Amino acid sequence: MRRIPSGDTLPRTICEQCNTIHYENPNLIVGCIPEWENRILLCKRAIEPRVGLWTVPAGFMENGETTAAGAQRETLEEANARVEIIAPYALYNIPHINQVYLLFRAKLLDLDVSAGAETLQVDMFDEDDLPWDELAFATVRNTLRHYFSDRHNGEFRFHMGTIEPMPTSHDTSHQV
Amino acid sequence: MRRIPSGDTLPRTICEQCNTIHYENPNLIVGCIPEWENRILLCKRAIEPRVGLWTVPAGFMENGETTAAGAQRETLEEANARVEIIAPYALYNIPHINQVYLLFRAKLLDLDVSAGAETLQVDMFDEDDLPWDELAFATVRNTLRHYFSDRHNGEFRFHMGTIEPMPTSHDTSHQV
Repeated sequence: MRRIPSGDTLPRTICEQCNTIHYENPNLIVGCIPEWENRILLCKRAIEPRVGLWTVPAGFMENGETTAAGAQRETLEEANARVEIIAPYALYNIPHINQVYLLFRAKLLDLDVSAGAETLQVDMFDEDDLPWDELAFATVRNTLRHYFSDRHNGEFRFHMGTIEPMPTSHDTSHQV
Repeated sequence: MRRIPSGDTLPRTICEQCNTIHYENPNLIVGCIPEWENRILLCKRAIEPRVGLWTVPAGFMENGETTAAGAQRETLEEANARVEIIAPYALYNIPHINQVYLLFRAKLLDLDVSAGAETLQVDMFDEDDLPWDELAFATVRNTLRHYFSDRHNGEFRFHMGTIEPMPTSHDTSHQV
């Protein structure tokens, strides 16, 4: 049942059995850009949405971890890669699917990397050979554009943006 | 019932009736430091936890909004104050209570402010008269220390940190 609890301002899903209020709040997706000299690591997705397209390692933050630890865990799970977090780099709001992306810059500790269970292939790319037309998500595309632009300028700044639904797309619920 | 769903790595709460998986992920708390010349706005809390202590306007981000819009909404709700968001300023992980704080710098648009329903009192403070010993949360204390330090240095940088449980406190679940 959905109703506005006493003292609240928005309708919430409330269990009719036990009166528990099930708050539904935005999810944080944490990930990183793993760097090795001039190249960065990308993962080719083995799962929907956007199977076969490339992304940075990222996924839902879990309870009990920090944002940086979540980004490291996702990088290990998706690319069997160990990274040291350098700094937060980009925050993207995706309000139409209730998600917030937080991506870090990270230093890859070695090149002993391989595809995890949700990944078809792991590879290292420089700006020139990056598969710009085969990136899975707008967040990844925007973040990587900023990344290489900042690298040219010699200074990495923190970026924030909002991803709107794509007018011609039928899968706006599939941004992750 | 809690078990590890197929293809997952962590136990989740699963409804035995409909097999819905109830993911429990960290919550984002969004807020801001509302600035007016050399002073900032703080709210004296009317609700637990930490009733009677001072905080910046902040609260749980809601579905369908951006982090900045959530910070503006909370500022309006708690202090009847209108702000323009300047930039993201601080991110704090509080892993033991599954929260992530994101606080912005913001420009107060006028001084027509007053206590909202969850606030006892709203007031403007400069660094010298700020109630440092009556701040509600470690996130607020740390953020404001950075804020005034950055102001002295003439440059506001983005800060990230992690709040650990307080060893002598019994209310570590009450950080918000």
